[in-house]
Amino acid sequence: MRPVGVLGGMGPEATVLFMSRVLAAVPARNDADHIPLLVDQNPQVPSRIKALLEGGTEDPCPVLAGMARRLARAGAEALVMPCNTAHHYAPAIRAAAGVPLISMVDLAAAQASVLAPRGRIGLLGSPALAKVGVFDAPLAACGLSLTPLADAEATLETIRRIKADGPSAQAIRQLSTEAAAQAAAGAEAICICCTEFSLVAREIQAPVPVFDALDLLVEATVRFARDGHVPDAHPAAPAAPTSDRETETS
Amino acid sequence: MRPVGVLGGMGPEATVLFMSRVLAAVPARNDADHIPLLVDQNPQVPSRIKALLEGGTEDPCPVLAGMARRLARAGAEALVMPCNTAHHYAPAIRAAAGVPLISMVDLAAAQASVLAPRGRIGLLGSPALAKVGVFDAPLAACGLSLTPLADAEATLETIRRIKADGPSAQAIRQLSTEAAAQAAAGAEAICICCTEFSLVAREIQAPVPVFDALDLLVEATVRFARDGHVPDAHPAAPAAPTSDRETETS
Repeated sequence: MRPVGVLGGMGPEATVLFMSRVLAAVPARNDADHIPLLVDQNPQVPSRIKALLEGGTEDPCPVLAGMARRLARAGAEALVMPCNTAHHYAPAIRAAAGVPLISMVDLAAAQASVLAPRGRIGLLGSPALAKVGVFDAPLAACGLSLTPLADAEATLETIRRIKADGPSAQAIRQLSTEAAAQAAAGAEAICICCTEFSLVAREIQAPVPVFDALDLLVEATVRFARDGHVPDAHPAAPAAPTSDRETETS
Repeated sequence: MRPVGVLGGMGPEATVLFMSRVLAAVPARNDADHIPLLVDQNPQVPSRIKALLEGGTEDPCPVLAGMARRLARAGAEALVMPCNTAHHYAPAIRAAAGVPLISMVDLAAAQASVLAPRGRIGLLGSPALAKVGVFDAPLAACGLSLTPLADAEATLETIRRIKADGPSAQAIRQLSTEAAAQAAAGAEAICICCTEFSLVAREIQAPVPVFDALDLLVEATVRFARDGHVPDAHPAAPAAPTSDRETETS
C-alpha cells in the first residue's frame, strides 16, 4: 500500500478525527490491512484565519510547503490536509511537494456537482470559510454557486459550543435549522466542511442530501493507498510537477 | 516546543488513542498550545508476536530502525512508541535514531517501583507480553517482579471482545476480577499495558492502585515537548548516541 502524508494539526483534533475515520473505513482482520499514514501533527502552523482575514503577519504558506516537502521526502506518495480553510494554499503545497495533494475541497465540489443539478449548494462550516472564498473557484469550475449561511452568528456559536463541551442535541437542532433554511433558499445539497460538525454529521436532519467533506477525503485516501488513484484537481489548480524529489535540496 | 516522533501503527488504534490523550492532556486555548507530533502510522510493521513467539521469518527490527531514523531526520527530537511489545526492540531503535526513545516500559517500571515497595507488580495486558518478557529487565532493574496473569485465557478473550465490540460492562468485570486475583497473589499495584484495556482503565475496580502505561507515556511526551526532559532509561538499555543525524547517510 502507498503511504499517504497528512498535513495535520489544523486543528489537531481534526487530524485525529481523520485518522479515526480512516481506521473505521477499512474492514481489517489484522493491523496490516490498515492504511499507512505519515502524519505531521503541527499545531504551530500560523493561523490561516489571521493571515487571510485579520491581516496577520505570519504567513502559513512557507510552513505548509515545508511540511509537504518533508512528508514527500519521508515517503508519502500523496498528501491530504484535513482542514478546509488551509486549502487556500493548495497550489503552493502542490508545487512544493512534487507528489499529488488530494484536495477535500475539490472532492466536495465534485460531489456537489452530482447532487445539485441546478447548481446550488449549501455549506455547513465556519463563516470564515465563505469569507476566505476557498470553495469559490472549485465550485465555479463545476458550475456551482453557494447558498450563504442563514445565521452565521448561531453557526459560529455552535462551533464554539462543540469545541468547549462536545456534541449536543442543541447543536444538532441548530445545524438542522440552518440546513433547512439553506434548502429553502435553494440549496440542493449541503456539504459539511467543519470537523466540529463532522462529529454530528449523521444526526443532522435536512430536506436535502447532506454529505461530509471529511468522509470524501477518507474514501479518497483509502483508495489512493490501495490503487494509486488520484482524483481530478479542479481546473484552476496548477498540476503537481511530476517529481522534484530527487533534485530536492532544501 | 520540541516535536516528538511516534513509531505508530502497532496497532493503528493505539496510535490514535495516544494522540487523543496527548490532546486531552494539554489545556489549550489555541491550536498552537498543542504538542507537535511526527507520526509514522505504519500498520505494515511485521508482527512482533509472530517474530518473537511464533518463529516468523519477517524481522520487525530493521523496519522499526528505519522508521526511527526517518522520524529523527524529519525533525523529531525524541521518539515514543505506543506499543508495549515492540519495546523489545528499544535498544536497536535507540541506536538507529540518534535521538532519545522515551520508553513506556521504563516509565511503567519506574512508576511501579514507587507504588510497590515490597517489589511485586501486576500487569493487565496480553499474555504475549509476559511470554516476550519485555518488562522483565526494566522491572528487575527496579528490583521488581511480576505477578502472573491469574486467568490468561479470559484476559485474552477480553482483548478480542473489546477489539470486536468496544468496551463493555463484562470487560470491566473481567479485568476487575483479574486485578483482584493478582492483588490477592501479592501484587501491590497493577499496570495497564494494553491499549484495549486503556479504554476502560478508569472503570476497573481493584484493591490496589491501577495505573496506565499509556498515560505515563502521554505525560512524558508533553513534558519533553515543553522542556526537553528525557526520563531515565533503565540501566540495561544502551544510551542513545549523542547525535548522528548530521552524518546519517542511509
